[in-house]
Amino acid sequence: MADPHPFDAETGVTPVAPGSYGATLHDAWTIGSAVNGGVVLATAARAAAAELDGHPHPLAVTGYYLSAAQPGPATVSVEPLRRGGSVSTVMASVRQGDEERLRVLATYGDLDALPGGEVLTTATPPDLPPPEDCVPSSAAPPELVGRVGLLTSIDLRLDPSTVGWAVGQPSGRGMIQGWFRLPVTDGAAPREPDPLLLLLAADALPPVSFDLGMPGWAPTLELTVHVRAQPVPGWLRLRHATRNVADGMMEEDAEVWDSAGRLVAQGRQLARTPRRRPA
Amino acid sequence: MADPHPFDAETGVTPVAPGSYGATLHDAWTIGSAVNGGVVLATAARAAAAELDGHPHPLAVTGYYLSAAQPGPATVSVEPLRRGGSVSTVMASVRQGDEERLRVLATYGDLDALPGGEVLTTATPPDLPPPEDCVPSSAAPPELVGRVGLLTSIDLRLDPSTVGWAVGQPSGRGMIQGWFRLPVTDGAAPREPDPLLLLLAADALPPVSFDLGMPGWAPTLELTVHVRAQPVPGWLRLRHATRNVADGMMEEDAEVWDSAGRLVAQGRQLARTPRRRPA
Repeated sequence: MADPHPFDAETGVTPVAPGSYGATLHDAWTIGSAVNGGVVLATAARAAAAELDGHPHPLAVTGYYLSAAQPGPATVSVEPLRRGGSVSTVMASVRQGDEERLRVLATYGDLDALPGGEVLTTATPPDLPPPEDCVPSSAAPPELVGRVGLLTSIDLRLDPSTVGWAVGQPSGRGMIQGWFRLPVTDGAAPREPDPLLLLLAADALPPVSFDLGMPGWAPTLELTVHVRAQPVPGWLRLRHATRNVADGMMEEDAEVWDSAGRLVAQGRQLARTPRRRPA
Repeated sequence: MADPHPFDAETGVTPVAPGSYGATLHDAWTIGSAVNGGVVLATAARAAAAELDGHPHPLAVTGYYLSAAQPGPATVSVEPLRRGGSVSTVMASVRQGDEERLRVLATYGDLDALPGGEVLTTATPPDLPPPEDCVPSSAAPPELVGRVGLLTSIDLRLDPSTVGWAVGQPSGRGMIQGWFRLPVTDGAAPREPDPLLLLLAADALPPVSFDLGMPGWAPTLELTVHVRAQPVPGWLRLRHATRNVADGMMEEDAEVWDSAGRLVAQGRQLARTPRRRPA
């Protein structure tokens, strides 16, 4: 039997007591010294799913980020709040030592048991050049890859029209888009997208403040992801954008589209903006 | 001294024990038999603020709705999770008897102490006819007002181009917009908007599914509101819209603009859609 993909192994949780799970946050998923917020959210969501029989999929997941998660051991505690017929709601907390990193509320259900039927949507998927014409995360300069472990753990292909910031020419639109998948590992079948991966996908791109000429870390205060459908296999398309930067804060909206052209997740976060670079 | 406005009196909380507050949910804020979700959120947010010295304003508030709140007594328990220099994060729970109605995570700060400076925004306020040319909530048929107490507690003026659903002609766009304020009461000064009122404003309009030809209740699973600035006095402009209705769920995005044309709050909720009316 094949080994699990690193994403599954490294966001995996092990029960240690009723409602309590052990996890190890890996430096393969870092940005600078901190572990990516989407990865921590996916780790908490995996523990929450383990507590909820019959409601395997996150439908709505909200994380409030209390302190920056570091590579190393962590504990996830889970408390079911309400078990219903079609959905269950749960609270989870990720701690490292005495520090709480993340508090989560989430509602779970069964995406395969939803009523289905007509999809009414006015949203349109990002218009992207093919992946081979995009800028791969593997093309990032070595000094950046050294500081952003995440770049080697995902296969990201950014739309060239939204990476001008990498060469000092941000577009000023506040939008970054591209293709996203987990890397294919030697001899293994591709690790296709699932609802858990969508939580990471909603926080996988560089901060859109880069595209506004504001380099630097944009710490998330709050991130909510709505999982709207089971993704089909293949590349995901991501678009992250902000519409309002004010008073040192910005909202960042994330759309995740599957290879069949369906909007499979919507994310929104409130983040602090980096200090603006002098003109 | 003037009496408090009914909004303040009826979302008020009274400390009963450390971290515990009493409240009374009023039938003046109902939709059908349930109390409006924004009102319950504002009640919880008021209790949370009472626990947080120096961080008076909600910046991000998330509510997971566990069961329908009813008019009558309620208890709000509040647990601070992290007190920081510029923001504090808190958990709150609203209960009635043995039933939890709402679980909340929220981050508070001081909107007046944010760094200020340039606002970069691509969002544009709703283009509305003047309030006197809009459809007032007071014009609703008596049988509707009898079932929706909320209609008499707020002064809502809906854009006529987004109320076709009221006469069987939904636009199909999934968008409703209008003016919003608290009613002026005899002899009292107007109760001007503040951050707490923005939480209600983000959930004050009829479900946008009405505008898609789906009448009926659209229960909220999760609602997050980002308060982006202190509103100035005057009318608020609201726009609620959905972009994606699928599998019995919809997201509903809310924008709240103040009378100076500033985007003061952004809300997003995941709600169940009513069963679609047969064609």
